[in-house]
Amino acid sequence: MENEKQEILNHSATHIMMQALSRLYGAIPGVGPAIENGFYHDFEAEHQVTEKDLPAIEAEMKKITKENLPIERKMLPIDEAIKLLKKKKYKYTVELAEELKQQGETEVSFYDQGEFSNMCRGPHLASTGELKVFKLMKIAGAYWRGDAKNKMLQRIYGVAFATKEELADHLKMLAEAEKRDHNKLGRELGLFITSELIGQGLPLFTPKGTIIQQTLRRWIEDEEQKRGYQLTMTPFMAKSDLYKVSGHWDHYRDGMFIIDASGEEMALRPMTCPFQFQIYNSQLRSYRDLPIRYNETSTLFRNEESGEMHGLIRIRQFTLSEGHLICRMDQLEKEFEGVLDLINYVMKTLRLEDYTYRFSKWDPANKKGKYIDNAPAWEESQKVLKKILDKNKLVYTEAEGEAAFYGPKLDIQMKNVYGKEDTIITVQIDFALPERFDMTYIDQQGKKVRPIIIHRSSIGCYERTIAMLIERYAGAFPTWLSPVQATIIPVSEKFVDYGNEVLGQLKDAGVRVEIDDSDESLGKRIRNAEKQKTPYILVVGEKEVEAKEVAVRKRGVGDLGSQKIEDFEKTILKEIKERLSE
Amino acid sequence: MENEKQEILNHSATHIMMQALSRLYGAIPGVGPAIENGFYHDFEAEHQVTEKDLPAIEAEMKKITKENLPIERKMLPIDEAIKLLKKKKYKYTVELAEELKQQGETEVSFYDQGEFSNMCRGPHLASTGELKVFKLMKIAGAYWRGDAKNKMLQRIYGVAFATKEELADHLKMLAEAEKRDHNKLGRELGLFITSELIGQGLPLFTPKGTIIQQTLRRWIEDEEQKRGYQLTMTPFMAKSDLYKVSGHWDHYRDGMFIIDASGEEMALRPMTCPFQFQIYNSQLRSYRDLPIRYNETSTLFRNEESGEMHGLIRIRQFTLSEGHLICRMDQLEKEFEGVLDLINYVMKTLRLEDYTYRFSKWDPANKKGKYIDNAPAWEESQKVLKKILDKNKLVYTEAEGEAAFYGPKLDIQMKNVYGKEDTIITVQIDFALPERFDMTYIDQQGKKVRPIIIHRSSIGCYERTIAMLIERYAGAFPTWLSPVQATIIPVSEKFVDYGNEVLGQLKDAGVRVEIDDSDESLGKRIRNAEKQKTPYILVVGEKEVEAKEVAVRKRGVGDLGSQKIEDFEKTILKEIKERLSE
Repeated sequence: MENEKQEILNHSATHIMMQALSRLYGAIPGVGPAIENGFYHDFEAEHQVTEKDLPAIEAEMKKITKENLPIERKMLPIDEAIKLLKKKKYKYTVELAEELKQQGETEVSFYDQGEFSNMCRGPHLASTGELKVFKLMKIAGAYWRGDAKNKMLQRIYGVAFATKEELADHLKMLAEAEKRDHNKLGRELGLFITSELIGQGLPLFTPKGTIIQQTLRRWIEDEEQKRGYQLTMTPFMAKSDLYKVSGHWDHYRDGMFIIDASGEEMALRPMTCPFQFQIYNSQLRSYRDLPIRYNETSTLFRNEESGEMHGLIRIRQFTLSEGHLICRMDQLEKEFEGVLDLINYVMKTLRLEDYTYRFSKWDPANKKGKYIDNAPAWEESQKVLKKILDKNKLVYTEAEGEAAFYGPKLDIQMKNVYGKEDTIITVQIDFALPERFDMTYIDQQGKKVRPIIIHRSSIGCYERTIAMLIERYAGAFPTWLSPVQATIIPVSEKFVDYGNEVLGQLKDAGVRVEIDDSDESLGKRIRNAEKQKTPYILVVGEKEVEAKEVAVRKRGVGDLGSQKIEDFEKTILKEIKERLSE
Repeated sequence: MENEKQEILNHSATHIMMQALSRLYGAIPGVGPAIENGFYHDFEAEHQVTEKDLPAIEAEMKKITKENLPIERKMLPIDEAIKLLKKKKYKYTVELAEELKQQGETEVSFYDQGEFSNMCRGPHLASTGELKVFKLMKIAGAYWRGDAKNKMLQRIYGVAFATKEELADHLKMLAEAEKRDHNKLGRELGLFITSELIGQGLPLFTPKGTIIQQTLRRWIEDEEQKRGYQLTMTPFMAKSDLYKVSGHWDHYRDGMFIIDASGEEMALRPMTCPFQFQIYNSQLRSYRDLPIRYNETSTLFRNEESGEMHGLIRIRQFTLSEGHLICRMDQLEKEFEGVLDLINYVMKTLRLEDYTYRFSKWDPANKKGKYIDNAPAWEESQKVLKKILDKNKLVYTEAEGEAAFYGPKLDIQMKNVYGKEDTIITVQIDFALPERFDMTYIDQQGKKVRPIIIHRSSIGCYERTIAMLIERYAGAFPTWLSPVQATIIPVSEKFVDYGNEVLGQLKDAGVRVEIDDSDESLGKRIRNAEKQKTPYILVVGEKEVEAKEVAVRKRGVGDLGSQKIEDFEKTILKEIKERLSE
């Protein structure tokens, strides 16, 4: 109910904003939906709206709410609606109405408020006076229908709330979120950059960002090896033949980068499965060989639309801790539980524990285009997955139509700092691809049997997980993940030699350590290291030189006093080795 | 002189073989050059020659040498030559002659022996009787002019020698080489596979092969970090804009995979340089920041022609230990020497010490197409490189026209098991790209200055280096690189539990260890482990269980007797940690 009320507020706010834009600039509306956390409206106007215009637009909206215009819904026959919209020169809405007509709609609803009227599904408030609290947030450009071939329209985002307190809370949350936003903070901390020359959705990890990825990668590869996984390294491209067998060519081609390799049709891979299956198929396998657990630190490519790319979250190239467990039916449950246990261990170590589960199923009504058309396999795999989830007492939501094209999934969902939910890890049960790739093992009776496959990740895609970590830690990475684990600051030039001695000793011990012997004042250098969120600052002066000590300041704790170098070394190495959090 | 004699032998052998093929099958000749280690001739014939036909062809060749036909050279005006070739229906040779005419040749040489005559540059023997020792080696198919759009011709390879001893030596070398050939042995040891569905030049590393790559990669990344390198992770594709600035678009486009990314022109990267330069350019750099040493375990792509791909050596995707040192002119020499020292350390550790140096320069006559057209930069960088090489007393050959398009190189050359030389590492000095990317640093006077760049590798491309290692070690990798470092073999089923105990203990210590508790006999299991070239075989029976020992067999050494598990553990861990060779 709460959500419904909020949606009505948002809907009405879009119309009131659009009415203000019509009055001020004679704007022609595009689409204007309610979205998570607010609303936006696209429009065409000769006047190019800037941030500076927002107060004036808000003032006009305020005026419209003061006028307290009644909001009235009316139904119009579709042809009459098109005629009316044409008369109003609402050319974008005309296009939408004509599409509705083609889809067989015979009548559509309009909402009127004073001189403003537009086609809309609603629902809306009863009068403009009921909108009390709203704020316009930002402006943007957006191609009509998201297509770069169409005209670029203007867009204004806003929020609407029932009370001033809710607005204040929202703005506070946003301010906090913006400080942590990985796309802002990650750049400020010098973890990644992007380049106009290279293109959108292709971030470059700097040395600092790369150290984080390398540390995570080695940890995950080692942990998986301990759990019986075998690492593979397979190519990032293949002939279209491979994807025709896997089904990617029919169900996923738009998401792939196609390459003409001197006449051969090839594509960059969007998933690793068919590549690891080639390794499985390169030998005869016996029931005794199963389960086989393959993992790969795998680079994948997705042909995202320009408008969709963002930071480290929506990118064209990413690296997934991707694995496939090939097992017998009698091993499936145990293997699945092993996967859940690994994910739980990884998320706990990273302190990303506030995830939720989503059970993503196919949509039988949409099976032709989106899914492999094998209803019995779908029913069977969904039944098996549900049984395992229930047995393990997982609390999950269900999502129809969110399955992979070849099987149902368990999604590990997590919210970013703005409250937007994203999938960060998936686990899938697959009865379909073993069939398509003719994968078999020889059972105890000497017969060929199809194995079952679990597709899974453990830490998800490194880029996305690092984005989550930047936001959760607000950049203050635990020591084992920090690009710089300790910064040595000599009190003055006299102590630089000793500082370098400490540097060498800690470096040799495997600590990522830097020295700041620049000309800045002591206070400034300490503040710089704090701004970089370095876990330890080691100040060295007269007293430390004599005692062979370092004065330790721990991030988030403060001054720990002076310690023998060896003692500090022991402490920090333990923290790194055991992946401790503060 | 020796080489010239050998080449004449090869030349004459091709004609004698072609003469035999004409007599036996009415074959029409294509091209037939002398090559490294022998010769081949392409031809068209209705009869499909198989390996079984080779003795008959050799017999006919023997007959021709017995006939001792005089070999006579004659010069023909080009039009007369074409007329003669047309009359003989040598359609492929007609094509070649017409091309020579277009290039302005007015006369060409023919060699006649008995009824056989063909256009040829020569030189040849004086008579067919002078060819004493020859052997046909293998058959193949080859498109006319190497173009898949043309007709597929037949090809026979052969060798010719002055003495029987030389032939015997050659065959012995070949037999030994074949056993070590990475493309054969690497597959036999289960290190990599290829897949028809994925395509040529795209090997898949199995778990065993991947462990080798992972071990090398971690070693190199750690060693480079110790030497002050900073690891980056940059995307594998970019807009064509980037390559237009770097010059790849003009000088290297044919070698690249081009992608149409929803209307944006992009390409997979053939080199990492322009990507790392974006990171350099993302900040203002001071003379105090230099040298900056970037490295990346970098995946690259080259659009190789189908016919050129081979094993792990010529592939479409490979991973290079690629780095760029960005330095001041006064740092160049020291940095270059640091690079040489690192390469030397890596090659020594891998026991790949029989490399040679090649100084690859540009070809001023070909500067328009192949090279960045900046003669002063070329002269300067070649002068600087030569000075450093001479100062370091390196013995090198010079190769004109083998430079990178942006600068001269020092190539580290190594021969494969067949004696074919390949470049496995390059180091380049580059004055051109800093200009193109407008890279600068601020000098002590506050002025913007261009840095100089050293492009370098340390271990080369992992695939190619692993190929070399397979051949050098004949598959017997030193313990630290072995996919399986020890195999535990229980004498009988009774000792499997104890075997698993040893397995657990060694695994926990970080040793890659397997147990073979299959139903095979003890002898068979030991032979299997030996065939897999496992460095240590640990047999466990009654005596070992009681004494908590393992009976150790060391590869290449033999039985070492029984040892306490702890003692063996200490020995093997030391061997792994110190990367010892036998």
